[in-house]
Amino acid sequence: MNRRLLLVSNSTLYGGGYLQHCQNNISQFFGKQVKRVLFVPYALHDQDAYTKTARDKLKSLGYEVDSVHEAADPVEAVRKAEAIFIGGGNTFRLLKALYDDNLVTEIKKRVLQDGVPYMGSSAGTNVATVSINTTNDMPIVYPPSFSAIGLVPFNINPHYLDTDPNSRHMGETREQRITQYHEELNTPCVLGLREGSMLLVEGNTVTLLGTTNARLFQRGKEPSEHVPGSDLSFLLTDAQ
Amino acid sequence: MNRRLLLVSNSTLYGGGYLQHCQNNISQFFGKQVKRVLFVPYALHDQDAYTKTARDKLKSLGYEVDSVHEAADPVEAVRKAEAIFIGGGNTFRLLKALYDDNLVTEIKKRVLQDGVPYMGSSAGTNVATVSINTTNDMPIVYPPSFSAIGLVPFNINPHYLDTDPNSRHMGETREQRITQYHEELNTPCVLGLREGSMLLVEGNTVTLLGTTNARLFQRGKEPSEHVPGSDLSFLLTDAQ
Repeated sequence: MNRRLLLVSNSTLYGGGYLQHCQNNISQFFGKQVKRVLFVPYALHDQDAYTKTARDKLKSLGYEVDSVHEAADPVEAVRKAEAIFIGGGNTFRLLKALYDDNLVTEIKKRVLQDGVPYMGSSAGTNVATVSINTTNDMPIVYPPSFSAIGLVPFNINPHYLDTDPNSRHMGETREQRITQYHEELNTPCVLGLREGSMLLVEGNTVTLLGTTNARLFQRGKEPSEHVPGSDLSFLLTDAQ
Repeated sequence: MNRRLLLVSNSTLYGGGYLQHCQNNISQFFGKQVKRVLFVPYALHDQDAYTKTARDKLKSLGYEVDSVHEAADPVEAVRKAEAIFIGGGNTFRLLKALYDDNLVTEIKKRVLQDGVPYMGSSAGTNVATVSINTTNDMPIVYPPSFSAIGLVPFNINPHYLDTDPNSRHMGETREQRITQYHEELNTPCVLGLREGSMLLVEGNTVTLLGTTNARLFQRGKEPSEHVPGSDLSFLLTDAQ
């Protein structure tokens, strides 16, 4: 399988600009062969403004951007895409729009069969996994399913947040929420990607990149910590 | 309409015990006529343990607890209930179980037609509203709909949390999430109930109780703040 994925936890890191913290990774990921990237702005309400932001940033890295929301036929746009980038925002809104436009299966085919490079950030990373069951977002719309594109056999929790020992807020911590997910049967493992980290998947190799550790939750096991540079390829086989 | 609802933001307030911060409100709400309360523990995985917690607490206030998960026929248990209490936990799990057991319509009928007192906390408050579109919970299971019991014509965001100006985390703030909800068409207003606050609904009168202000979000308007004791009855008519 010649899949190539760059799954980024967050689009913007505190104190930096849009995609600034991962711009070198993006350049390396798309390389010099890719000229045009198909952008999917469905996770935000103002798709024109969002496309401009993504277009300006990727242009500064040497890539032209076509947005799927500007295409007469979104499925055809995916069929012709050299590379795909799905941006962050609300994961429910994003997944619903992907289903509405019949893009879930099409993107999966292009990435897994044709080797089209796929980049996602935040919600765009969530929809690349098995399901959106471990998104942090508010369920503002009802998608026809929580099953996502399934480019990898595990789930990700982007913007992973450690428990604040000084907090007086009584809502569930992030770790408690993921533990609740694993109380359900047949749930895949969940990689908590802290802001600043990202996952590079090349074929059957998975590498943690960025500047922060990731926390891995496996059903019935203690969570484990993984430092940047770690080989996490076992996630592709031991996903449950 | 002789509905009576006590919708609590949170089951436990920092530094206190289970339902401690609202125990006087509970006693006043159920009063001396109610002898037995039907508890719904569906939002947590360990329903036996959860029932014991609720039973012990309500017993200390003078009420016997029957749990719907111990009933041979949950629908029949709702039909016979003198009072209903739905506890907090995961809102998706709770709503799915209510649909699985055909309780959504039955509870609505009992509360709105028969005047059976309904108490909810956290997830139990979410499911009393129009929909669970403004829950904070992780979508760990897929319910057949986000539409909820609909005992009031607006939504609630329990555990409402103010934006922390010192945070370096780049995930959306609670206010941003509710604003995203209101970018969608035909969305009802959302009352952000901070921890420590609760809503008393008696017929067509709505009163904010507890110790913290509530923040009201109406589509296309600036949010507004409301102090404990406020009459919020307009929510029943101007919900959109």
